[in-house]
Amino acid sequence: MSEQSVSIKTTGKVIQSPCGPIIHGLEDVLVKMTTISDIDGQTGRLWYRGYRIEDLAENSSYEEVVYLLLYGKLPNEKELAEIRERLAKNRELNPATVEVLRALARGHPMFALEAAVATEGAFDPDNLKLADALRAGRYKQEEKELALRIAEKLVAKLPTMVAYHYRFSRGLEPLRPKPDLSHSANFLYMFFGKEPDPLATKAVDLYLILHADHEIPASTFTALVIGATLSDLYSIIAGAIGALKGPLHGGANEAAVKSYLEIGDPAKAKELAEAATKPGGPRLMGVGHRVYKAYDPRAKIFKRLVEDYVNKFGDPQKLFAVASAIEQAVLAHPYFQQRRLYPNVDFWSGIAFYYMGIPYDYFTPLFAMSRVVGWTAHVIEYWENNRLFRPRACYVGPHDQPYIPLKQRS
Amino acid sequence: MSEQSVSIKTTGKVIQSPCGPIIHGLEDVLVKMTTISDIDGQTGRLWYRGYRIEDLAENSSYEEVVYLLLYGKLPNEKELAEIRERLAKNRELNPATVEVLRALARGHPMFALEAAVATEGAFDPDNLKLADALRAGRYKQEEKELALRIAEKLVAKLPTMVAYHYRFSRGLEPLRPKPDLSHSANFLYMFFGKEPDPLATKAVDLYLILHADHEIPASTFTALVIGATLSDLYSIIAGAIGALKGPLHGGANEAAVKSYLEIGDPAKAKELAEAATKPGGPRLMGVGHRVYKAYDPRAKIFKRLVEDYVNKFGDPQKLFAVASAIEQAVLAHPYFQQRRLYPNVDFWSGIAFYYMGIPYDYFTPLFAMSRVVGWTAHVIEYWENNRLFRPRACYVGPHDQPYIPLKQRS
Repeated sequence: MSEQSVSIKTTGKVIQSPCGPIIHGLEDVLVKMTTISDIDGQTGRLWYRGYRIEDLAENSSYEEVVYLLLYGKLPNEKELAEIRERLAKNRELNPATVEVLRALARGHPMFALEAAVATEGAFDPDNLKLADALRAGRYKQEEKELALRIAEKLVAKLPTMVAYHYRFSRGLEPLRPKPDLSHSANFLYMFFGKEPDPLATKAVDLYLILHADHEIPASTFTALVIGATLSDLYSIIAGAIGALKGPLHGGANEAAVKSYLEIGDPAKAKELAEAATKPGGPRLMGVGHRVYKAYDPRAKIFKRLVEDYVNKFGDPQKLFAVASAIEQAVLAHPYFQQRRLYPNVDFWSGIAFYYMGIPYDYFTPLFAMSRVVGWTAHVIEYWENNRLFRPRACYVGPHDQPYIPLKQRS
Repeated sequence: MSEQSVSIKTTGKVIQSPCGPIIHGLEDVLVKMTTISDIDGQTGRLWYRGYRIEDLAENSSYEEVVYLLLYGKLPNEKELAEIRERLAKNRELNPATVEVLRALARGHPMFALEAAVATEGAFDPDNLKLADALRAGRYKQEEKELALRIAEKLVAKLPTMVAYHYRFSRGLEPLRPKPDLSHSANFLYMFFGKEPDPLATKAVDLYLILHADHEIPASTFTALVIGATLSDLYSIIAGAIGALKGPLHGGANEAAVKSYLEIGDPAKAKELAEAATKPGGPRLMGVGHRVYKAYDPRAKIFKRLVEDYVNKFGDPQKLFAVASAIEQAVLAHPYFQQRRLYPNVDFWSGIAFYYMGIPYDYFTPLFAMSRVVGWTAHVIEYWENNRLFRPRACYVGPHDQPYIPLKQRS
């Protein structure tokens, strides 16, 4: 094809190179069209398949949201019962995956998840069948349905992987999934070994709903880049987990909780917020967001849940009290107002996990458990009009360096 | 930052969306500057750090090329001796990784490599140390040197993973690496269980040199996208392996060999090449290249090696004879001449592996064993001026869909 010039708008940094401009980090560069999720950062709104996140958080279960994101519509009663059954049926892991999780018992769970997902993929006949079809250039209705079923399997299996790893890491035997429990209740059961309090289940379910998709951050982009090679869905998700592991992506709710523990006293919040406005001052964890220039809608929703949780179970480490005081101080301060910096979802979500007794290392695995549906939905959407990602680098080094024999090199 | 328009040149397909143009697959879009490798597709030239691939193939070992790509200069005798020693010392795997490879014995080796790399990363204290430093926003000389040492470890360990998996898959016990053997000789020793013929060692070493870097195809881009989140180097490489696994990226040399076996007779080559020029005709495997519009320089080099190999050991399945006949037919035919379609490196490389007795499934793992150095070099280069990749999707779905209660949905 002949060369053409395309005008791209960006608010990011543009680096001039001898080969042309480089939009650093591809900020604002469009890579696809989507009907999966949309964010209005200016007004603080988020939609999944056109539905307001508030409506979904209020009325739906995670299973329903999984159906919505994968199939593009809310399920009716029959469809919901069917996907619940498929998800429940697919929770079990291949024995090889269990062995891999056991071998990784003393490693960080994100590494364990990467390895476990790759292992499960090696032995899922559907995954191998779809990969063979893609290799042969075949991607019709049958293959698309297969891809959706594999996506459901990944959604179903990730909680088992996370819970098994936790059990192994503590020297406990894993508990097999209970098909009669909901997705979130079963996760907590497998993790802690007892049927959970309904409010804890609600907290996990709400967290999973709120994090299920968010357009294309780095982990979703990783999934797309791997997916576009027509690699298999498990390898794609293993790669996305590797990206979510990066501190510039996941991990903010852990940092927020740790900062509340360190602060310890709500009375310090105002002074701290003031200090954070000064050059070289402390950074307030979970405040501000790359996209949201209004109050993160997910944060609003999750805050109410955390409030219910501490009302029921108490706030012994004053995490909610400290966070609420910081929130008040931030919302009242002109510095944050002018810069449109608001608490984001990470500001609140770690508090619930902490009080439930979920160790820090499992916060980001919970994120993966939720986002896996967004990752797979985006790849399946991209496959409708697939194109290998093949950007370029601008070479700025020398050419035709004289090759000096080894013995003569200084 | 305020919005600006940037003019990007592309020969790719541009999709118009309501949010602006989408350059499909980011074709030709610049994402970084580099001094690692350069390709001149028009004249068929390739440089690593400014050195012609022909000079390196003729004079250097893979270990030397690893040093060149990571450190930016050819090593002197002392530096080469030191990197050889470090690579040899780092070949051993963590016992957990051995367990993971054993659990994956019956799975495809690419899944096993993904899982093994993630596992090894979970237990490499250097990897965890660097990840902690990156998390804390620290990336100075000490961290950069640590990253280079980790890159060397990955180069050293991948062949052990591949060989162990092969041994387990055949019900054989793995052989521990021999530090006195070269990188390539040791790989073949661990794989086949005997010290290799020097020409086989040369073939592997040459293959590893020729595939060590090639600007930023999808696997390297995957490494950059994951790397930019400041995830750890093992997770980055596990992700890149997942991308290399995709049939639109790796796997072409396997397809080429299989086609030669199927053709079986050099006398059929002319007719076949003719048929390939017709609509709906057969596709010639390993002919044509996205970047090279001249004879792929790596193909020229590797062809000579394959010729030496069959001269010494014979051509019992006529793979070289068939390939040579196809090459002649292609080079002589105006259809291929006009479209500048030449045999690429995949056209030849599989023949050597096939005759060595390396099973098809291990062809792409060998690619990973080579390219791991390019992947790590590119990430380390990008970290000098890191920026999270955050492209956008254009939302084209509805907004504010009315939420219909479950019982009322049709």
